Amino acid sequence: MDHAPLDAIYHDYIQCLNNRNWPALDRFVSDDVIHNDRRLGLDGYRAMLQDDGRRIPDLRFRIEQVVVQAPRVAARLRFDVAPTGDFLGLAVNGRRVNFCENVFYLFDRGRIAQVWSVLDKAAIEAQLG
Amino acid sequence: MDHAPLDAIYHDYIQCLNNRNWPALDRFVSDDVIHNDRRLGLDGYRAMLQDDGRRIPDLRFRIEQVVVQAPRVAARLRFDVAPTGDFLGLAVNGRRVNFCENVFYLFDRGRIAQVWSVLDKAAIEAQLG
Repeated sequence: MDHAPLDAIYHDYIQCLNNRNWPALDRFVSDDVIHNDRRLGLDGYRAMLQDDGRRIPDLRFRIEQVVVQAPRVAARLRFDVAPTGDFLGLAVNGRRVNFCENVFYLFDRGRIAQVWSVLDKAAIEAQLG
Repeated sequence: MDHAPLDAIYHDYIQCLNNRNWPALDRFVSDDVIHNDRRLGLDGYRAMLQDDGRRIPDLRFRIEQVVVQAPRVAARLRFDVAPTGDFLGLAVNGRRVNFCENVFYLFDRGRIAQVWSVLDKAAIEAQLG
């Protein structure tokens, strides 16, 4: 099985997020996408990302690892950001935090159909002291 | 590339953990294994797992998803357990909690050389109220 296509699609998806190219999001995300068991749909998913961007003005997704076995992709993403207010229930308030997200995706016909994401909240807590 | 071998090895590794078959751990884990940037080595890794087993008497690893692209494996593991005391800094004290671990492994010659694990602490906090 050739893994190049999903790998390329995934890198383009992350570039789309980093460019905040919301009109292009439907090329990568399914209309009825589910995120952590919530059936957000494309509109809800885009709204979640836009909200993340407002609360984290310097939000940038950096791929540290990606593992591809169609129809699944797993990625370890790195963030080095300064959320303006509360983040994951923690009073970050503009401090810079560095943490990872380990996330699994199920693709359907080249688009993300389901996402299972875990953020390393303990790492953020350790940095806030 | 054939992914069957690493997939089979990974399932056998999880069975080894669930059987608490510590003498067999060296079949799956490299002598100088690194876990979340700590160079535990095989002895330190085994000690960590044995400590987990003491603090979580009903500890059982259940594979929900596994993504294999040699030399990497990514897995989403599910736990339904009752840690006896503190767990991740939370006073669980014997309550039953259900949560996931999203974890990446780098294999070297059929054994786990490096692990990047994130536990869903926020899910546990939500259950503790």
